[in-house]
Parts: sequence; C-alpha cells; structure tokens
Amino acid sequence: MAPTMLTSAEAVEEAFYDAMRRGDLQAMMALWSDDDEVICIHPGGPRLVGLDAVRASWDSILSSGAVAISVAQTKTIGGAVLCVHNVIERISVQAQRGPQTIQCVATNVYVKGPRGWRMLLHHAAQAEDSGDAQPQVSVPSGAVLH
Amino acid sequence: MAPTMLTSAEAVEEAFYDAMRRGDLQAMMALWSDDDEVICIHPGGPRLVGLDAVRASWDSILSSGAVAISVAQTKTIGGAVLCVHNVIERISVQAQRGPQTIQCVATNVYVKGPRGWRMLLHHAAQAEDSGDAQPQVSVPSGAVLH
Repeated sequence: MAPTMLTSAEAVEEAFYDAMRRGDLQAMMALWSDDDEVICIHPGGPRLVGLDAVRASWDSILSSGAVAISVAQTKTIGGAVLCVHNVIERISVQAQRGPQTIQCVATNVYVKGPRGWRMLLHHAAQAEDSGDAQPQVSVPSGAVLH
Repeated sequence: MAPTMLTSAEAVEEAFYDAMRRGDLQAMMALWSDDDEVICIHPGGPRLVGLDAVRASWDSILSSGAVAISVAQTKTIGGAVLCVHNVIERISVQAQRGPQTIQCVATNVYVKGPRGWRMLLHHAAQAEDSGDAQPQVSVPSGAVLH
C-alpha cells in the first residue's frame, strides 16, 4: 500500500512503477489524484478519462499478473505544484515467439495537493529505441503522420 | 512567422498545429522553448531531445508538405508557469490504400518564460478511437504491456 503522504513527484513515480512490478492494484490507485479528469493512455490504447475508467484498465492489466517494467533516462520538468517526467520504459513480455523487451516512452504528470503529490496523467506509447541521439521520423504505411 | 510574445499556452498550441497545417518550419520552431532539453516524440518514433534533433525531425516532416491535422477534446492541466494539454489529433493521410484518417493522442507541455509561453514537450502516439468513454487495454502480440 502506498504511503498516505508522498513528498515528491519522484516518490510517486517510484511507487507507480513498483505497483506495476508487484501487480498491486490498491497501491497503484492510491497514487492517482482524485481530480475528476485524471488521464491514462496505455500503449496503443484509447485515452481513458476519470478514475473509474483508469481503475478498470489497471484492474484488467494487473489481474493478469505483475508487469516486468524498468524505467530509465528520466527527464524532469519541475514546477512548484505541477511536475512532468518523461521516461523510457522497458517491458519484458512473453510473446508467442518467446521473451522479448518492448520499449515505450511515457509522459507522466504529477500534481501537488493537500495529500502531497499524486499522478494526474500517464501517457505511454511504444517507441523506437533511440538513445536520445538520432533525429528519426516514423513513416507508417508510406504516409507522413508528423 | 509566429508572434514574438505568446500570452498563453493555448496560443502556442494553436500556432503549433497551424504551423503543421501550413508546413511552416520557421513558424514551428519559433514556438519551442530554448531550453536545452526540449522533447519531441513523433508517433512510433524515438524520443528526440534538444532543439537540433527536434528541428531536424520537423524539417524532414514538413519538407514533405503540410500536415492535414485537426485537434479536438483538449484537456488542460494549468499552472502558473507550466501547462499540460492532452489532445486528440486526427490526421488525414494518403496511404497506399487511399485516403485515411489516423487518430493520435498527444500530450503537450508548455512553459512560461521571459518571451511568453513556449512548447517544451510534444508527445504524440497513435491511439484507438475512444470518445474518452470505454476502458480498454491494448494487448499486442498476446502480451500485456501495461
């Protein structure tokens, strides 16, 4: 279970990925803001708005078991009451062809309220492995997206 | 060319998508913060960090022509110096099978500095069409991502 007072965005983020690794729905949901419009976008999934939709999605995911996820290369945009992290996620999965690692980029937004810091937005999406180095543009189906 | 003083995150966002629609690289780049670690993630692409990488990516995209993009269902997380928008993007593309519309979700982060508001992060990724309603989880290749 997450502590009731989280004193930094970093603490929320650590607890967030820890809850995923332990498959702990209660701990996961304790980290979210009670704002009406919390937002969660899982890789390739739709935008989910509101705690009910967000909870249902994590219930579905974590009921299948823990998520073997690690996080690296965190970039922080810090404010007094709002903090944005952008991280590289690496997820180990058992695919039909065997074990593989999938890389995502996630943008996480944290807000400071009376109960300390909480998560307000999690936006994760599959991404190419870049090492933050090369400018490269994805052109799916022969069409420029942007 | 973008105005030198943008008085709100909304004004930057409007100019950002307008620059895409007009294929105007100069206007696009005038909207970004001069922070060393601006971040841009195009759909499916790697994380690009820094103005040089971000500029090169937009140069590559916009040199192919304007992007037929519209934005809807904006959610705003507003702070005094930091503002986060999450939007549904719809992009009309000419694919090999003919014209089609691709839906993305984008998280855009804006910061207020001496020159007014500028873009600090743009994270766009393909997403299912949801109408913000149904909790739904993407399970690619039979594996739970998260």
